[in-house]
Amino acid sequence: MTFKFNNVFVNNTSTVTGPYEKEGPLGNKFDKSYDDLYNGEKSWEKAEVKLLEESIDILLNKSNKKKEDIDVIIAGDLLNQISASCYGSAKFKVPFLGIYSACSTSTEGILLGASLIDAGRVKNAIVSVSSHNMASEKQFRNPTEYGAPKPRTATFTTTGGASILLSNTKSKVKVESATIGKICNMDQKDPNNMGAAMAVAAADTIYTHLKDNKRDINYYDLIITGDLGVYGKEILKEYMMSEYGLELSTNYNDSGTMIYDVESQPEVLAGGSGPLCSPLVNYSYTIPLLEKGVLNRVLIVATGALFSPTFVFQKEPILSISHAVSLESVK
Amino acid sequence: MTFKFNNVFVNNTSTVTGPYEKEGPLGNKFDKSYDDLYNGEKSWEKAEVKLLEESIDILLNKSNKKKEDIDVIIAGDLLNQISASCYGSAKFKVPFLGIYSACSTSTEGILLGASLIDAGRVKNAIVSVSSHNMASEKQFRNPTEYGAPKPRTATFTTTGGASILLSNTKSKVKVESATIGKICNMDQKDPNNMGAAMAVAAADTIYTHLKDNKRDINYYDLIITGDLGVYGKEILKEYMMSEYGLELSTNYNDSGTMIYDVESQPEVLAGGSGPLCSPLVNYSYTIPLLEKGVLNRVLIVATGALFSPTFVFQKEPILSISHAVSLESVK
Repeated sequence: MTFKFNNVFVNNTSTVTGPYEKEGPLGNKFDKSYDDLYNGEKSWEKAEVKLLEESIDILLNKSNKKKEDIDVIIAGDLLNQISASCYGSAKFKVPFLGIYSACSTSTEGILLGASLIDAGRVKNAIVSVSSHNMASEKQFRNPTEYGAPKPRTATFTTTGGASILLSNTKSKVKVESATIGKICNMDQKDPNNMGAAMAVAAADTIYTHLKDNKRDINYYDLIITGDLGVYGKEILKEYMMSEYGLELSTNYNDSGTMIYDVESQPEVLAGGSGPLCSPLVNYSYTIPLLEKGVLNRVLIVATGALFSPTFVFQKEPILSISHAVSLESVK
Repeated sequence: MTFKFNNVFVNNTSTVTGPYEKEGPLGNKFDKSYDDLYNGEKSWEKAEVKLLEESIDILLNKSNKKKEDIDVIIAGDLLNQISASCYGSAKFKVPFLGIYSACSTSTEGILLGASLIDAGRVKNAIVSVSSHNMASEKQFRNPTEYGAPKPRTATFTTTGGASILLSNTKSKVKVESATIGKICNMDQKDPNNMGAAMAVAAADTIYTHLKDNKRDINYYDLIITGDLGVYGKEILKEYMMSEYGLELSTNYNDSGTMIYDVESQPEVLAGGSGPLCSPLVNYSYTIPLLEKGVLNRVLIVATGALFSPTFVFQKEPILSISHAVSLESVK
C-alpha cells in the first residue's frame, strides 16, 4: 500500500543524543548531546522522556513556532505503553496520536502525518520518537549488572530523541510517497539477532514500494534501511538478490552501521538500533544532503522488530515490519 | 482537532469475549464467547493474540471479504509493545499500522482509518483491539496469586477482541466526524482509580468536539464514554458541569458501567475497562441501534490512561487521553 503526496514538506528536524552517538561519526551534526545517560534526570526512563520532550522544544525553537501552531503530535517509542512519548508530549497540550512500530515508528509517523497534511486535515504535524540504551536494556534484556556477554550480532540501542516538522509550507525537501509495511515472520527467535528478523521486512517493503511506483532500484540516490546493523545489512543484500533479483549496491546503506563507528566503538557490536536510529541518521545526515541538492531522491526504510520479552520467553518468533518514506530534493 | 468525514461507513463489526462478558447484560449480543480465559491457548498472552485474530477472521467472514480485499489493519492493545495486535494480525499479511492510546485505542484507530478512507487512500480498513483480564493483571498489577484486595474504584479489564470494517461503501451507519484528544494530567497517582484520571480527558474531548462542530450537548442521542466506570462517570458529570457548565443527563452513559452488571458481578468492582471495553459495548449494542434507526446520532468517547507500572513506581502521575468518534444513522 503506497501513498503519493503532492503537498507535504519537511520544514525542520531536531536531534538530541547521549554520549555514544556524540562519539560516533555523525557526532558533530546533532542539535544537542549529553555526556551521560541520565541528562540530569533520576531514572533512565525519565531521561528518555526528557530527551523526547527536549527534541520537540528544540524543533519548535528552530522552526520559530509555538506549541499552539502545532495541530498534532504523532509519537512512539520502545518503552512499555510508549510511556516516553506520552510523558514527553504531555506538556505541549497538543492533539496526540500514539503509534507503535518498534524501530520503524518514525516512518509510520511520517506517513500518517503526511497523509493528514496532504488531505488538508492538519497544517503542522510533529512526528517524534525516542529510545534510550539503558532503559531498553533494563526492559528487554538481562540486567546489565550481570555483565552477560552478547553475541556479535546484537545491536546497541541509540539514546536520545528526534522530531520532524511536516507541513504544506514549501521547503527544500518534499515527502514524495510512502509505503505501509506488512508484518513478516521468518521464524527467527533470537533477540540478539534482530537484523536477521528484520531484513525480510525491509526487502518486502522496498520491493512493494518500487513495484507500486513502477520504479527501478536505481531510481533512488540512496536507499537507507535501518536499523539492520552490520549482519542484517548483508542478509538484506543477499535476500533482495535471491528473492527479487534486485541488487542493492552503492546506493544502499543502513543507519545502524552509520550512527556508530563499529571499529572504534566495539561496545556497539553490530551497530545502532532503536526507533531513534533511523531518524538520527536521516535528520542529521540525509535530509541536509537533500536540502543542498547533493542527494535528489532518498528512500528511508526504517525497520522494526515486533515482539516483547514475554513472547520470546514463550518461544514465539520475532516478527518484523518496515515502513518506507520517499524524500525528494526540491529545486 | 476535529475531522469531518463525507464518505466513510461502518460496514461490519465483530466481537469475541471471555466468560465474564458473556455473563454480563450484553452477553447474548457477541459473535462468540469463551467459557474460560485460555480459549485453548497455553498462556494468557497467546489467548489474547488468538482473540484478536479470531475477531478479524469473524469480521472477514461476516463481511464476505478475503484478507486480500483489506488495504490496512490498524490495531493496538495494552500488552507491552502491543504484542497482541502484532502477533494477532501477522497471519493476514496485510499492510499494518500499530497504534497505542491505552483504552482509547479503538477511537484513535477509527479516526485514522476514516481519514485514510475519506482521502481516497484506502478502500477497506479494519481497526482491531483486544484486552485480556489476566494478561493485564499480570502485567500491570500484583500477581493475582497474592490475593491482594482492591479498592472499589478499581476496574476489571475486559477479555476479548473486537474489529470493525470501515470503507466508502454506503451502509446504515456513517462515521460523521472525529476529534483527536490531548494528553491530560490531573496529577492522579493511584492506578486503582483510573476513572478519576481519565474523566478530565473525556471532558476536554467532548467540549472540544462540540465547540469545533458548533453543537449543543443535546445534539447527540447518546454520548458514551468509557471505560470510566461507576465512579469516573460521576466525576465526569460533575466536572463537565463545574468546568464547562454542560449537563450530561439522560443522553449519557459509560461503557465501563454497561458491559458488566456491577450488582450481580461484584468481582468487576467499578466496572469494565481495557481497550476492548468501549468497542465491545458499541459494536454489540450502539451500532445495531444506529442501524435500526433507534438512535440517530452517537458520540463515542473512548478514554485511555497513559502510564506504565515503571512510571507509577517512580511516582509519576497517570496521564490520560480521549479520542471521540461521531456516528450517524443513515436514512
